Formats: sequence, C-alpha cells, structure tokens
Amino acid sequence: MEMPLNPQSVDIVLVSPRNPLNIGAVARAMANFGFARLSVVSPFAPHWREARSAVGAPELLLDARETVTLAEAVATCTLVIGTGTLTHRKAEQPVVSLPSLAPLVRDELAGGGRIALVFGPEKHGLTREDLSWCHLLVEIPTDPRQPSTNLGQAVAVCLYELASRAFSQPVESASQNPEDTADGSARKSVPAAPSGSLELLAGVIEESMLASGYSPETMQAANRHDLRLLLRRLAPNPRDTRRILGLFRRILWRLHHTQNGK
Amino acid sequence: MEMPLNPQSVDIVLVSPRNPLNIGAVARAMANFGFARLSVVSPFAPHWREARSAVGAPELLLDARETVTLAEAVATCTLVIGTGTLTHRKAEQPVVSLPSLAPLVRDELAGGGRIALVFGPEKHGLTREDLSWCHLLVEIPTDPRQPSTNLGQAVAVCLYELASRAFSQPVESASQNPEDTADGSARKSVPAAPSGSLELLAGVIEESMLASGYSPETMQAANRHDLRLLLRRLAPNPRDTRRILGLFRRILWRLHHTQNGK
Repeated sequence: MEMPLNPQSVDIVLVSPRNPLNIGAVARAMANFGFARLSVVSPFAPHWREARSAVGAPELLLDARETVTLAEAVATCTLVIGTGTLTHRKAEQPVVSLPSLAPLVRDELAGGGRIALVFGPEKHGLTREDLSWCHLLVEIPTDPRQPSTNLGQAVAVCLYELASRAFSQPVESASQNPEDTADGSARKSVPAAPSGSLELLAGVIEESMLASGYSPETMQAANRHDLRLLLRRLAPNPRDTRRILGLFRRILWRLHHTQNGK
Repeated sequence: MEMPLNPQSVDIVLVSPRNPLNIGAVARAMANFGFARLSVVSPFAPHWREARSAVGAPELLLDARETVTLAEAVATCTLVIGTGTLTHRKAEQPVVSLPSLAPLVRDELAGGGRIALVFGPEKHGLTREDLSWCHLLVEIPTDPRQPSTNLGQAVAVCLYELASRAFSQPVESASQNPEDTADGSARKSVPAAPSGSLELLAGVIEESMLASGYSPETMQAANRHDLRLLLRRLAPNPRDTRRILGLFRRILWRLHHTQNGK
C-alpha cells in the first residue's frame, strides 16, 4: 500500500488576511516546509496585490487561488481543520492540540482524503460562521497570559509540525495493519465526503425542514449553522452522503407533492 | 525527584539582529510559549531601540540583557545550542534535528543545567566563530529548495517544539529510572561546566600551547577555534574542568619556570 502522502494534498486557506507582511510570511513558511497550495478567501484587495508583488515573493503566492467564500475554498476537502485559540468561546467541534494532529492528518491522507488548514484574519481569528465549515479545530498550545499568535508564526508552527511528523515518517506507521482499515472498528476506513457534497446535502435537508414545517423561518439561520456542524461531526463517506441525499430528495418530493395534493 | 523543569532555565540569544519587526516577532513568540529570558548580542542600536519602544512590546523585551559578545551571553550556560541551516558548510559540532531536541533539553535541565538557544543575524545566520561557542547545532527540517527561515518564524517553531515536548510533559519521562543517572553509562549524569569556565580553561591551555612552542603564532587563531570546539565536545563537568585547569596551570608554571631557568 504505497500511498502518496504529500503536502500537496493539504490546502492552506487564509480567510481575509490583512497585513501584506503576514501574507508574505505565510507563503515563506509554506515554501520552507514544502507546502504549495494556498487559497485566499475574500482578501483585502490592495494588501493582497501588495503581498503578491513583493520582491522575492514565492511562486506559490502567484499561483494562489482566490475565492469569495470559505465554502468554495474548502469544497473539495474531506477534512477541514480550523485554527485558533479558544479563549473567548466554547468550541462546537472536537478540539485537538497541535502536537496530536499528525496521526489524524496521516490517516486522512492515507485514505485518499484531502485536507484544508484554515487560518482566520489577524485581528479576531475565525468567526463562528467560518468554524461551522470545519470538522475539527486545532489549537496551538500557548501561554494563557499571551495566547494569541501572529499569523505568520502560527502557520509556520503548524506546517513545521505536519512536515516533521505527518509527512517525514514512513507511510507504514499510519496504519500498521492494512487489514484493519476494512474493519468498521478502525477510526475511519474511507474518507468523508468532501465539503461541497455535504453542503449540497445540507441544502436539501434544510429545504425539507422548511417544507415540513420543522421550525419557524426565524430559526432558519440557526438551524443551518447547527446542521452544518452536525454533518461534519457525522462525516458520512461519499456513498452514504449520496444515499442520505437520495432519501431527503425523496422526502422533499413527497412533502411538496402532499402540500400540492392538499 | 521533583525537578523544576521550566522555560526560565532557557536563554534565548539573538546575535546582532537587524530588523525591529523580527525582534518584536521573537519577543511575541517567547511570550506565546512561556519563555521570558532574552539576551541580545551587539544589536544594531537604532533598530534595537525601535523594537523596544514599539507599542505593545512584551515586558521581556524591556528586560532583555544586552551583551557585547556571545561568549558573555552564554557564560553561565551548560548547553549552548546554535540554530541554522547547514547548506553552505559542514558542521563542526553534532547536529540534531529539531524534532529530536526535546529529550536532550529535558535531560540537561533535569540535571540542573542551563541552556542557551542561539539565533544568528537575518542575512547570514551564525558565523563559524559564533558556532564555536555551541555544543550542539539544531536544524529545523526544511525543504532543500527553500531552506532559509525567517527569524521570527524560526524562533516560534523552536519554542513551540520545546514548549510542547520538553516542558509540557511530566518530568518522570525524562529519565524513566532515576537510578540510571548515577550510572556512568547514562548519557550524562552531571551537567557540563558552564561556557565561562570552559573559556577560562581554554585560555590557560592556549597559553600552555604558546609557552610550550606547540605551534607557530600564525596558527593561534585556528588553534583557539579548534580548542573551543574540542572542549565543547568533551563537555567536562565542573569538577573535571577545575581538575584540568589545575593541571594546565601547573604545566604553565613549569613551562615558564623552565624557560626562566634556561
């Protein structure tokens, strides 16, 4: 089982970065640790231009993908990992400390998955809405008296950890016994459906909620948020996702049909 | 054996840093990961002032120690660790990869030692002369196509590694069996003599070399360099250092006495 575990299966995603120096520092850390795929979500245009035109800017900065929404940036990823410190709020997702992240990343990639590592804006980090796209939060263990890290340094620390502990070791150690992965008891045998499929499913479920009168329209935003989190906790694989989607499409058809028939 | 293993036994030493933003980034990473002791060797005065007067500069920047030489900055340290990438030269000291550093640091501190982690100037890193004060080099594993890291990011990565793998774990795991440390076969039972003692010894040995006509005066600089490296490879403990010093003082006295007697 020679799986190509490599940093090209990891997207680094910056949500609305502001400081061109920080953007440059992120690109440099990526080049240092062998990562090449950068996505930037709705950057502040002048600063983004400035960062890309800087002398000696790594090629990966010129090749970076620009998207309007985080949903779009992570659509093809099977494991979306948010970063940040959790001083102000309680996490709605599982939280893992950075030194424990590498085995999860190795398992996901060994199974053929694709990972996004998402960093928020300098001032306030990822919002609750941003985090609702994440399956998992990773926390850099810092001193409680000074928990907030600089963006360029946070990226460097995360990529160092992955480069030296997820990618530098022989692939064998990710799943010691290949037979295990067929077993339902193994952590996860097939990677989850990509973020975009989950969102398609979420849309149909949401329509079903509305069509069924599940909850008042004023609850729609809150329901959408909770649903997104729920689907990422469940992390259905692509086949199951299609199956559930089929079910809800059927339900939805029936709901509309019944309403029309009334 | 409740040894106080803590980051205050580690000095972060910057040799001639130039960019005030980098100095600020170093201080921030130190605060993030719980390190407080910063030394700066012959900084460029205006930039050093600028870094210290920056808004929101951490207290540790104001408390930083300023020295003229690296020798002075590391004089009380028993394990001096140089940092950098070794693309241009062959190391004269043992090299350890950053992911393997934590156990060495833990052992050294558990034995009552004191550590310096030394970072060179942004442009060219530590010189061969700077490195001659180091017992050990640590290398951040980076992509060979882009090996050179930004100073603030290099410090962040090193301190993250130590904070999460040398200081956050229970002390017991440093030496699983306390009886082992009395055994000569253990890596090192007593910390080495501090850098200042080794330099005192080196001075007397050098005098002895000259007085004995060991080598021509044109070789003096090269000999001094090699001697410094040799003593750090040997890493004699304080008692042995005093013993060797006593021997060479005696030799020196004899050499002078013989010359006078001729």
